[in-house]
Amino acid sequence: MRFLHTADWHIGKKLHGYDLLKNQEAAMTEILAIAKKEAVDAIIIAGDLYDRSVPGIESVELLNQQFIQINLEAGLPILAVSGNHDSATRLATGAPWFKQRNFHLHTTLEEALEPIEFPEVQFFLLPYFEPIAARLYFEDDSIKTIGQAVLRVVQAMEEKFDPTKKHVLVSHFFVAGSFRTESETTVEVGGLDAVTSDTFTAFDYVALGHLHSKNAIKEGKVRYSGSLLKYSLSEMNDEKGVWLLDSQTMEPEFIALTPLQDIKHYEASFAELTDPVIYHSLDREAFWHFEITDRAVIPNMMNQLRAIYPYVLTVERKNGHDVVRQVTKKRAKTLAPIVVLQDFFKEMTGESLTPTQSEWLETGLTFALDTEKRED
Amino acid sequence: MRFLHTADWHIGKKLHGYDLLKNQEAAMTEILAIAKKEAVDAIIIAGDLYDRSVPGIESVELLNQQFIQINLEAGLPILAVSGNHDSATRLATGAPWFKQRNFHLHTTLEEALEPIEFPEVQFFLLPYFEPIAARLYFEDDSIKTIGQAVLRVVQAMEEKFDPTKKHVLVSHFFVAGSFRTESETTVEVGGLDAVTSDTFTAFDYVALGHLHSKNAIKEGKVRYSGSLLKYSLSEMNDEKGVWLLDSQTMEPEFIALTPLQDIKHYEASFAELTDPVIYHSLDREAFWHFEITDRAVIPNMMNQLRAIYPYVLTVERKNGHDVVRQVTKKRAKTLAPIVVLQDFFKEMTGESLTPTQSEWLETGLTFALDTEKRED
Repeated sequence: MRFLHTADWHIGKKLHGYDLLKNQEAAMTEILAIAKKEAVDAIIIAGDLYDRSVPGIESVELLNQQFIQINLEAGLPILAVSGNHDSATRLATGAPWFKQRNFHLHTTLEEALEPIEFPEVQFFLLPYFEPIAARLYFEDDSIKTIGQAVLRVVQAMEEKFDPTKKHVLVSHFFVAGSFRTESETTVEVGGLDAVTSDTFTAFDYVALGHLHSKNAIKEGKVRYSGSLLKYSLSEMNDEKGVWLLDSQTMEPEFIALTPLQDIKHYEASFAELTDPVIYHSLDREAFWHFEITDRAVIPNMMNQLRAIYPYVLTVERKNGHDVVRQVTKKRAKTLAPIVVLQDFFKEMTGESLTPTQSEWLETGLTFALDTEKRED
Repeated sequence: MRFLHTADWHIGKKLHGYDLLKNQEAAMTEILAIAKKEAVDAIIIAGDLYDRSVPGIESVELLNQQFIQINLEAGLPILAVSGNHDSATRLATGAPWFKQRNFHLHTTLEEALEPIEFPEVQFFLLPYFEPIAARLYFEDDSIKTIGQAVLRVVQAMEEKFDPTKKHVLVSHFFVAGSFRTESETTVEVGGLDAVTSDTFTAFDYVALGHLHSKNAIKEGKVRYSGSLLKYSLSEMNDEKGVWLLDSQTMEPEFIALTPLQDIKHYEASFAELTDPVIYHSLDREAFWHFEITDRAVIPNMMNQLRAIYPYVLTVERKNGHDVVRQVTKKRAKTLAPIVVLQDFFKEMTGESLTPTQSEWLETGLTFALDTEKRED
């Protein structure tokens, strides 16, 4: 059999405040097109379907619609688990009906121990869970860390192994030795708190979610698919896509997705960025990370850039500011707050505070500092 | 065929702050038991399944579990619509899979026009909707009120009528001439904004939700089922239950539910209420509405009563207060705020404010009144 491995859709996630629903819709549609073209027998989604435990209504509508298209309209089986961003309970709505159409959405440890049977493969769908769940389920107080918990769960799965089939684990956690990007949630990573990849030697393939880079781990059979889209600037140079697998070989083949809007980087002066000759040569609809070479103060810079490039994420100064009066962190600590503000205003706008503005700030600062003292 | 008609479950609703999930679970379990005992072919739920558009996680878990028991385990068809308290979009999660097991949950106007076919009956499931939805759907700008909208929808339904069958409408709105209880949401009720019951002459039965009394309307074939539980003090004397119907006669027969905790009323003196002889004769676990006959000040009254009756909803004074210094509304307006507070404190506790308490209140009042002036 053939199957696709994807994860970390994070439906509803925003990028520096920009809504990504259209981008997410396009990427999911492309995954379905790949699934059809490659004639796969199932799509694996390894957790974090939503970005939040209570997703917004547009997110609910979008994901519901996608599931209808994949499972009911295209007739494709889905093998999915809840991730740490999902509410397992909310996500489970409808699941007992889904499975009658081979849409298996597991949200509890108990479900994980019953394999989903395909003629050539047994799939074990292990949702994100806390060690306490395993401690209670196995009635074993010695289970204290997620590493111990996953080890115990894998043991229980092995007891269900059909030796005539291949075995695939679908799950969502941090595997020791992986590296991380900025858009992932912080997880506790300690010696005992990590799952080591040798836990999975019994499986022919481990389809993971949680980390957003497909290269987060270099093991051959243990893989993160990476996220649906680039969800942070640190993922700018990532390639996003899905793994295609054939159960005969279990050799993952990467198929890249074409994002609706990519994250791009450009280094230039402000004059160049606002020059029609330049900006007509650039993809103005991309999410831009600019590095500008100017040293001078540029009043209202972000608004001027967004008038041309609607999706500017960040602007960095390549050469630092040629500031009117450089306020170092150290100096800021020794100056009166009002002086720091006056400097900052002049640095940003090129103009000095008016007497009225200064007076207003003095009043505000006095009040704020008094309040701070009272709260000490 | 035989079917039950219920509505307004409002899962997650609280009664004067008391959680009702256990009560709701018991009532839903009783409905399923009735359905089995009466060997019905379907259960109608006419809207407001949840109390809020984003229900709490315990509510989601409870309702999901009930649907599994009714539809998947007992194999009973469900015919349901979303009400004004439900989020149509969120509630629709899973619905396309549900219908494959004869669990029909309609949340859009479009779905309402396709009848659900049973051998002897066509059911039309019309969710709560706004006139604008009908105006857009029928591309008819003359539709301005809910009355006009429902009339137009019913016309479209009649075009789908199979004359060899009976016709049942399931819906959720306010019908002119009905009377209301306190736990219902305020709806605009005007001459044009109401649906009149003669709109429904083509139907053999109209199973409504929205109003919480089964007697809200007296028409024979147009009925509210009333809510699952008593959701306000004004419903204390209501009888809650379900209508049982046989499609042969379409004569609704009422089957009452036995609540886990009823709302009860008792009139006595405070001394009687706290007398073991009395309270051992009362159902201490009920939701109590007490009328006390005392005139004297009873310090800490509510806490004393709740130590005996954990679910006191309200305590009313039968004979008014014998107050230390009666502050009428009119007098309160002419007195200094600090005097009103001193009076109130003495009235409630029987003691005077200490000098420190008075001073503290003065400071607080000065600040509050200053703020009020500034905001004017």
